Amino acid sequence: MNFLNEVSIDYPSAISFASGRPAEAFFQLESWLGRIDDFLEHRAKKDGVSPATARALLAQYGRTGGMIVDLVADQIRRDERIRCRPEQVMITAGCQEALALCIGTLFRTPRDVLLVRSPTYIGATGIADASGVEIAALSDLAELEDTIAALERAGKRPRALYLIPEFDNPTGTVIPEGERERILRVCASKRIVILEDNPYGMFRFEGEPSRPLFSLDTHGAVIYLGTYSKTLCPALRVGFLVLPPALFGDARAARELHARLSERKSFVTVNTSQIMQALVGGVLLAEGGTLSRVIEPARLLYGKNRDVMLGSLASCLSESRWNVPSGGFFLTVDLPFAFGRREVERCAAEEEVLVMPLSFFALGEGGERSVRLAFSNVATADIPRGIERFARFVQKRLAA
Amino acid sequence: MNFLNEVSIDYPSAISFASGRPAEAFFQLESWLGRIDDFLEHRAKKDGVSPATARALLAQYGRTGGMIVDLVADQIRRDERIRCRPEQVMITAGCQEALALCIGTLFRTPRDVLLVRSPTYIGATGIADASGVEIAALSDLAELEDTIAALERAGKRPRALYLIPEFDNPTGTVIPEGERERILRVCASKRIVILEDNPYGMFRFEGEPSRPLFSLDTHGAVIYLGTYSKTLCPALRVGFLVLPPALFGDARAARELHARLSERKSFVTVNTSQIMQALVGGVLLAEGGTLSRVIEPARLLYGKNRDVMLGSLASCLSESRWNVPSGGFFLTVDLPFAFGRREVERCAAEEEVLVMPLSFFALGEGGERSVRLAFSNVATADIPRGIERFARFVQKRLAA
Repeated sequence: MNFLNEVSIDYPSAISFASGRPAEAFFQLESWLGRIDDFLEHRAKKDGVSPATARALLAQYGRTGGMIVDLVADQIRRDERIRCRPEQVMITAGCQEALALCIGTLFRTPRDVLLVRSPTYIGATGIADASGVEIAALSDLAELEDTIAALERAGKRPRALYLIPEFDNPTGTVIPEGERERILRVCASKRIVILEDNPYGMFRFEGEPSRPLFSLDTHGAVIYLGTYSKTLCPALRVGFLVLPPALFGDARAARELHARLSERKSFVTVNTSQIMQALVGGVLLAEGGTLSRVIEPARLLYGKNRDVMLGSLASCLSESRWNVPSGGFFLTVDLPFAFGRREVERCAAEEEVLVMPLSFFALGEGGERSVRLAFSNVATADIPRGIERFARFVQKRLAA
Repeated sequence: MNFLNEVSIDYPSAISFASGRPAEAFFQLESWLGRIDDFLEHRAKKDGVSPATARALLAQYGRTGGMIVDLVADQIRRDERIRCRPEQVMITAGCQEALALCIGTLFRTPRDVLLVRSPTYIGATGIADASGVEIAALSDLAELEDTIAALERAGKRPRALYLIPEFDNPTGTVIPEGERERILRVCASKRIVILEDNPYGMFRFEGEPSRPLFSLDTHGAVIYLGTYSKTLCPALRVGFLVLPPALFGDARAARELHARLSERKSFVTVNTSQIMQALVGGVLLAEGGTLSRVIEPARLLYGKNRDVMLGSLASCLSESRWNVPSGGFFLTVDLPFAFGRREVERCAAEEEVLVMPLSFFALGEGGERSVRLAFSNVATADIPRGIERFARFVQKRLAA
């Protein structure tokens, strides 16, 4: 991503469809900081101590697994159809730490392999790489069984499958429910843990919300990963993981996994900032346990931005194809030619618009003729102009 | 540490010398949260943006290595005699993350070994263990050269030495300057990186502050680790590391190490909470770049607690020996018998006092006849009673 940061520094006035960040306009940091006191009042009552004592203890070291597990369990039941007991939840320093802890804990031998779709979120492949974990890429989930079989023949052991089933980063796609059932059956039969990452699920623009793999799972195969970076704001660095009640049917194995993840967390970040946990907890208390009202303006904006982007694409870029995501932050455009580093730079220099090659998210080959367009962090008014510029670049390339 | 947590839950009214936490009485969370606005004002001016824009960007994702590196570099120059450029600093999610990043980045092959003193801080050995890094324990730093030679003969490569030179946890001891010079020479000659952890250095009760290894180092052998958990409060989860300007004389190698640490951090926690960084930055701005005024009440309390503890020990426990630390949070008592798990439980059950066996911090054997007494997080008035109870337990054991 350093390359893209550099390009955006070189062309500061370029319109960027590259940033998949949430829109800053809806961050309410000042008001959210005020919610810390709401949480302290709640906590003081619950623990039978004075608010001053509750505040002093808040600023101290705390439980490794976090102190808002009950509030998080309650919120994801309301907002994300996840039913779990607070003991299944662990609060982490952003969802990335949850992922890092799972990779560090689940992968024990050089035979263990992480399965991912390619292209996929680079934070998942990045931490696997940094941990020396072998990665096997699926260009299509239909290859799941064949890939597992091939790995087993080679003496390898597929240990986990990383997925963003709802409004995937970078593709924006949703895995249909029937396909989710199939993936669950295949993984459960091979005792492959599914790491289900769901940062975008609440940002659905139309249609019925899907059921998360975690809630479809009857095998105990799914670890659910979540974050408050998109629903509230990234600077909190508060995320979480949810373990199944019984890992592949074994409740004791699930508790042992919780203990191992917790031990690892104690050696990576000790515990997640209790001040930031209190902010999240205070907002959840004030909002009656759901973030649907808080995220509504952002959800409406992202939906509008998607519509404007789709309209602009239809009017300017008829030679290409794109998908129509029903939510999330991204869509992808398939082009009639390869679009890589060089094209990023030229497109920025010639037309002042930034897009993200899908190949940047791929393991090995793949995605060479596609780009990801993010509509979450760009001004609505800039979208038609940005797409026009991008279309001009595409047409010039086709004419050349 | 779970064992000790359980014992303290079983005996809630016990006086505890086990907790090495800072005293809560001096946390000023409410006032410190107000400093976020001071930081935003400073930042808005510096970047030429409105305070509202600065606030929105604060809540967003940020630079991997942190945004208060200049303020931290300025503070540790004033407070800890560390001279460095802001580019040498990386902000981390507590000092533990700094340690985890160093272990994950420096240790690349199964031949690489971490050197530690035994007993030592369990966060250091814990992350090494969790990362599959072999550890070699020194019961005395005089063994340093022999241990290195023995490891080399066995085909191993000592890669780093972890030390708390100032008011060590758990022993409370200080490494003298001459010894620091010797350690630097030995490590530099073998290209062994020294991880210098200094959480307690500012809490000196008497005598002249020592020069950190980092500031004595002319070889580029030292990575300095720091935290705001003791000077401000643990719930911030803000720490940092400082790289040498030229790693073993090689400026490019130091920059490459910074890049590798930064990449790893991006896959572990993305970046450290900018809200918590802004709080630290705001306090540093308000305090003119030094925390000496902020920590003064805590420093005075810890010094008084140490004096009361030493007085009580002298009047109750003449059969034993203890050290007299000139700062920090801990002292150790050597007993005429072994003090382990069983003694912790009995001492809690019979006398309602909790102490920490030194063997809990040891790798393999060592420390069986010693305990660590923390004086940082116990009420001054409880210390004479607590030491009396402990002395009674010791005397009963000796009589039996």
